[in-house]
Amino acid sequence: MRATTIHAPFDMRVEDVPDPVVTLPTDAVVRVLRACICGSDLWAYRGEAARQPGQRIGHEFLGIVEETGTEVSTIGRGDLVVAPFMWSDGTCDYCREGLTTSCEHGGFWGAVGYDGGQGEAVRVPYADGTLVRLPADAASDDHLLSALLTLSDVMGTGHHAALGAGVREGATVAVVGDGAVGLCGVLAAKRLGAERIIALGRHAVRTDIARRFGATDVVAERGDAAVAAVLELTGGQGAHSVIEAVGTEQSMQTAVHITRAGGAVGFVGVPHGSGTGLDLGVMFNRNIALRGGVAPVRTYIPELLPDVLDGTIDPSPVFDMTVGVEAVPDGYKAMDERTALKVMVTN
Amino acid sequence: MRATTIHAPFDMRVEDVPDPVVTLPTDAVVRVLRACICGSDLWAYRGEAARQPGQRIGHEFLGIVEETGTEVSTIGRGDLVVAPFMWSDGTCDYCREGLTTSCEHGGFWGAVGYDGGQGEAVRVPYADGTLVRLPADAASDDHLLSALLTLSDVMGTGHHAALGAGVREGATVAVVGDGAVGLCGVLAAKRLGAERIIALGRHAVRTDIARRFGATDVVAERGDAAVAAVLELTGGQGAHSVIEAVGTEQSMQTAVHITRAGGAVGFVGVPHGSGTGLDLGVMFNRNIALRGGVAPVRTYIPELLPDVLDGTIDPSPVFDMTVGVEAVPDGYKAMDERTALKVMVTN
Repeated sequence: MRATTIHAPFDMRVEDVPDPVVTLPTDAVVRVLRACICGSDLWAYRGEAARQPGQRIGHEFLGIVEETGTEVSTIGRGDLVVAPFMWSDGTCDYCREGLTTSCEHGGFWGAVGYDGGQGEAVRVPYADGTLVRLPADAASDDHLLSALLTLSDVMGTGHHAALGAGVREGATVAVVGDGAVGLCGVLAAKRLGAERIIALGRHAVRTDIARRFGATDVVAERGDAAVAAVLELTGGQGAHSVIEAVGTEQSMQTAVHITRAGGAVGFVGVPHGSGTGLDLGVMFNRNIALRGGVAPVRTYIPELLPDVLDGTIDPSPVFDMTVGVEAVPDGYKAMDERTALKVMVTN
Repeated sequence: MRATTIHAPFDMRVEDVPDPVVTLPTDAVVRVLRACICGSDLWAYRGEAARQPGQRIGHEFLGIVEETGTEVSTIGRGDLVVAPFMWSDGTCDYCREGLTTSCEHGGFWGAVGYDGGQGEAVRVPYADGTLVRLPADAASDDHLLSALLTLSDVMGTGHHAALGAGVREGATVAVVGDGAVGLCGVLAAKRLGAERIIALGRHAVRTDIARRFGATDVVAERGDAAVAAVLELTGGQGAHSVIEAVGTEQSMQTAVHITRAGGAVGFVGVPHGSGTGLDLGVMFNRNIALRGGVAPVRTYIPELLPDVLDGTIDPSPVFDMTVGVEAVPDGYKAMDERTALKVMVTN
């Protein structure tokens, strides 16, 4: 079968790889219908996260179950399923508590020796713990399928950020980052009852989606000017809840400084310098909390799924480019150059 | 009257200062019965926090109301009252939400132009918002008075740390810091139902108090060895809730590394380098939250007071040295040299 591999920074290839097979009784093999490229894949693409030459890549996908191991009981051949961006056993202490990303047997798609989502099929470890079955008729609904694909990462991650930021009914929320996760953060905040949502971003295409997702205000400035603009919009106090969906020093600094005293920053941007953007003195004086991290999206899928199915939330507009698997390298290029917001891969 | 002033690092004096008078209708004048020296006063003492020569100092006190302004309605002459370590108006948005430390009209005792607690009397701004009345008969109960004095800061701050760390019934809690706040954090965690409390500290006098307050384990190691010891005690997972009551790089680093995935660090140590001890990568991967800051102890006094009055909690053992106001400089010296844990000042 065909699958995307990474050989060196900026060297993505689509190659013939062995077809996946069930190797453990808890495995399933899933034929991928849709996958996508994540902003965090770009860290590997740019060489800022190390990969071994030939490693598979891609951690967001949905598809049809092709084969299951003897111990798999909750899904079966022919089921339409979505995979969260990490696998998890579903039974350890952490999984039972909902923190599936700390699963004792968990792991990342594309890790050495494991399949990635940007290919034709994937061997799924701990299929019962990992996969979530979707209604079979969604497979023929092109639009719905795109929306459901976001449950594998960005929608659940946006939701995690909103929870970390303590978004509540009536809250004022600010979102730092206009990537797919930031935009899903807007949607999640709206879903949780935020009254006012300030999206920080300066790409009209993206902030237009933010408005469509529920943003009431857009701040195009950066750095100190962004802080001043948000304070101006909030009577000098800042936002109760701030979503940090970038991970850089500047984005974290902005996030902390636009948070209202007693509020919280929900952080889901993979840290790339953001630690130095944390002004602990300010956080101490103003009792600003920091909560977040790698999102246990497996836990959130059952909660978010009904709202996607009935159209209460539709995250599908985050996809603005679609490629077949052979053109995945073009998708990386487009996301790296920011000509695409988020790329969907169809098989 | 006599009061403590600070003139330069290590230059504390007890001097004649003007008697305080009611200057605003919302003021009260309180004759101080008991005050104390705080670990955070040592930052000024050591010159690490700047002060103007002659500034008053001390932010923890209780006493008898001597005079009130015309607009003060909740307390009156002769009442026994305790003051939290900041004054607050009790009416602004933040005060109504319980975040009295962010009060729009709040301030610190000993700020330029304001009285400090380590003297014979204090002018109290916003007396209705700030002071809490205590039962009159407590004034003649020496032991109880010492316990009540901790409500002005350390007991409320320990409680804030425990809340920030998310201490719950049955939780495993670790406490970094064996000063008065850390010890009160142990007591607060016990009060909130923690099942296991690991106190980190290597001064037997202090860890003995920790055990008396509810610590089930004591870890004397520091740095990596402390992390290893706590992980060993917790089956490799770490503590659900960690109280950081020091504020240095090492203490914060230890706190983050002994927190269980999905857990929280409640930080109340005034940041002195602790920002650089935050390993955001670890916090991200393990979903470790950080919550805390300057404790709104005014809000906590009504909640903690009944438990102090009926003896459910007795924080008074944190005081191990008592001086009269004339000997306050000796108290600073003792705390700086760590021969005293916490010094009480009696008038």
